[in-house]
Amino acid sequence: MADTAKHTLSTGARRPALRPAARSAVEPFLAMDVLSAANAKEAGGGSVLHMEVGQPGAPAPRAVTEAAAAALARGRIGYTEALGLPSLRERIARHYRDAYGVSVPAERIVVTTGSSGGFILSFLAMFDAGDRVAISAPGYPAYRNTLKALGIEPVEIETSAATGWSLTGEAIRAAHAQKPLRGVLAMSPANPSGTMMSQAGLADLGRACEELGLWFVSDEIYHGLTYERPAETALSVDPDAVVINSFSKYYCMTGWRVGWMVVPEVLVRPIERLAQSLFISVPYLSQIAAEAAFSATDELEAVKAGYARNRALLLQDLPRIGLPDFLPVDGAFYVYVDVGRYTNDSMAFCRRILDETGVAVTPGLDFDPARGSRYMRLSFAGTEETCREAVKRLGGFLKG
Amino acid sequence: MADTAKHTLSTGARRPALRPAARSAVEPFLAMDVLSAANAKEAGGGSVLHMEVGQPGAPAPRAVTEAAAAALARGRIGYTEALGLPSLRERIARHYRDAYGVSVPAERIVVTTGSSGGFILSFLAMFDAGDRVAISAPGYPAYRNTLKALGIEPVEIETSAATGWSLTGEAIRAAHAQKPLRGVLAMSPANPSGTMMSQAGLADLGRACEELGLWFVSDEIYHGLTYERPAETALSVDPDAVVINSFSKYYCMTGWRVGWMVVPEVLVRPIERLAQSLFISVPYLSQIAAEAAFSATDELEAVKAGYARNRALLLQDLPRIGLPDFLPVDGAFYVYVDVGRYTNDSMAFCRRILDETGVAVTPGLDFDPARGSRYMRLSFAGTEETCREAVKRLGGFLKG
Repeated sequence: MADTAKHTLSTGARRPALRPAARSAVEPFLAMDVLSAANAKEAGGGSVLHMEVGQPGAPAPRAVTEAAAAALARGRIGYTEALGLPSLRERIARHYRDAYGVSVPAERIVVTTGSSGGFILSFLAMFDAGDRVAISAPGYPAYRNTLKALGIEPVEIETSAATGWSLTGEAIRAAHAQKPLRGVLAMSPANPSGTMMSQAGLADLGRACEELGLWFVSDEIYHGLTYERPAETALSVDPDAVVINSFSKYYCMTGWRVGWMVVPEVLVRPIERLAQSLFISVPYLSQIAAEAAFSATDELEAVKAGYARNRALLLQDLPRIGLPDFLPVDGAFYVYVDVGRYTNDSMAFCRRILDETGVAVTPGLDFDPARGSRYMRLSFAGTEETCREAVKRLGGFLKG
Repeated sequence: MADTAKHTLSTGARRPALRPAARSAVEPFLAMDVLSAANAKEAGGGSVLHMEVGQPGAPAPRAVTEAAAAALARGRIGYTEALGLPSLRERIARHYRDAYGVSVPAERIVVTTGSSGGFILSFLAMFDAGDRVAISAPGYPAYRNTLKALGIEPVEIETSAATGWSLTGEAIRAAHAQKPLRGVLAMSPANPSGTMMSQAGLADLGRACEELGLWFVSDEIYHGLTYERPAETALSVDPDAVVINSFSKYYCMTGWRVGWMVVPEVLVRPIERLAQSLFISVPYLSQIAAEAAFSATDELEAVKAGYARNRALLLQDLPRIGLPDFLPVDGAFYVYVDVGRYTNDSMAFCRRILDETGVAVTPGLDFDPARGSRYMRLSFAGTEETCREAVKRLGGFLKG
């Protein structure tokens, strides 16, 4: 799973000067490398339980595939406006009224090629090279890597299980006092921990950003997937917040690559110009399909009920097999487990688990370079049967 | 069409410090703004002939939509490997053997989210901030904008109609002597001129890059769309060349957002790491569909025969209506016309043409900030009827 890919240098040999750019030396996304190793094991005839990827096991809702099929039958799949199909932008704006009671004009909605596209565009629109942006550790590794690749300095703020792995206004003020920040990037519900910020915590963070004059970027990709109370959008505490979201998680549309942002008016035209050159257009079929996703609530809530069952199973059974150290998962579909009693090398530990039990899990190092060596992340986005069997195999492994 | 969008600052008002990043101040892509203006005129009931966008008028081939429909029916549209579906990478590698007689292992093929995704990934993998990359003027405006947004300095080298608007080894050596370059980005057939480099010209450019230790990036997106002789891939003159291509043009798949690169081995893993964080995955359906495009040659050649008829019509009729100054279009679907006898402000000229005749054309300023004020680009990717009627209306306009 480490970066051991060997490339013979039959090309490039005549040009000793031709080496990759320094900024391409970002970390690999270990979860994806784990996926490759798991797939290889599976291809070799092994039985693999996929608890490593943050991808819904369910396909997109029927309304989504039907809308896509109808568009396919209608004819040309062409470019759309760089900011997205107007009808989809309108529909997303309506979603803010319906789901949060927040009024956002469609002009401030930007359709993106997954949340990934949103990060590239919004980071370039907000931050210049050398700017410092606070992110939490543990956190989604693509933040760190994307910021770095774009010349922005990620400032990792260590959070702890004691405060639900959340960034706080106090921590932001302290980091800013040390050396000025330009923005803060928060996520709730969070990957890898499944924890959520309280409304008060969100407001505290928004206040700190406002006082310090920082961009507040809120990754709300796991909204909709909450088990105790609904998540609040950052827009409710800071109308200038840049909200990133996607159809990948709640809407089960990972491979469609379609997401959206809500951005302040001052960023709309800069993002439009950047999108015209850097992306041209978001995939057309995916935009058509995404609009239909808003009418598939029954089906999507049934999928979510499955996650809730998986969550209940894990919250109950993991402690029984010797994995009691995790927070109770307010949302998303991850459990972030402290395995420090078993190992101080989560990478080797996860590799052994995959080898010996066929359960694919992600080492915490993806999410927290400093402390992740004693954590691992389990995704319960698959079936209940997968979770049940994984618990059984993990239990045997830990006892053995 | 200029950047006159006005955004009231109701948000952002409390944070005077929050302004877009300096690097977001890239130029708008005027062709896209022309498209908006044309669509607005059309929505208002006007008759518009679209000669402004570089988008095939034909839908994707039947095999493509059928493959997508079958995949939709099969179930989950999930993430794929960051470098693309293995079967698609294999199929593209085979294309190099079949079309060019060049052997490239599938491991060096990277599937991308349109050529746009290829530019972002390859630029980040090859160039650090501050690196200088030679591009031609006139040329595709997204090069300049994307390079700038990523902190790379585009070095525009003025080419001329006399040399078919092509970069030459001599021009590269001269620019490099002035201040070192790190790479060269060339396109053949070219946008906006439709001109092609000769095999000797390509080899000359490859030699210069090799001698000077520069990355040679070859945008081959218009390959397949050639009218006199097939285009040569840069790989035939430089095995280390980074080739960018796409299913958007010859394969009529613009809105699917799928393309590919051929990269030297030394860039494969850096690009994989970047793609894992910056893109996660290329749209799944589009990858499935793209593989089917290789079996749609008959249909695609029929589409191309239509372009050839449009080209013949324009090459014959444009001189007759007072537009004789252009090169004969070796490939792609553009005519780049010198309108210096009528105007020194192509932006105003194109706006007048749209207003008075309903023919949407793109001002040369998109492609050549310095000299584009006396050029305009006509795209003939639409129907013969559109071309015929456009010639009629333009003739009336120029006489009037």
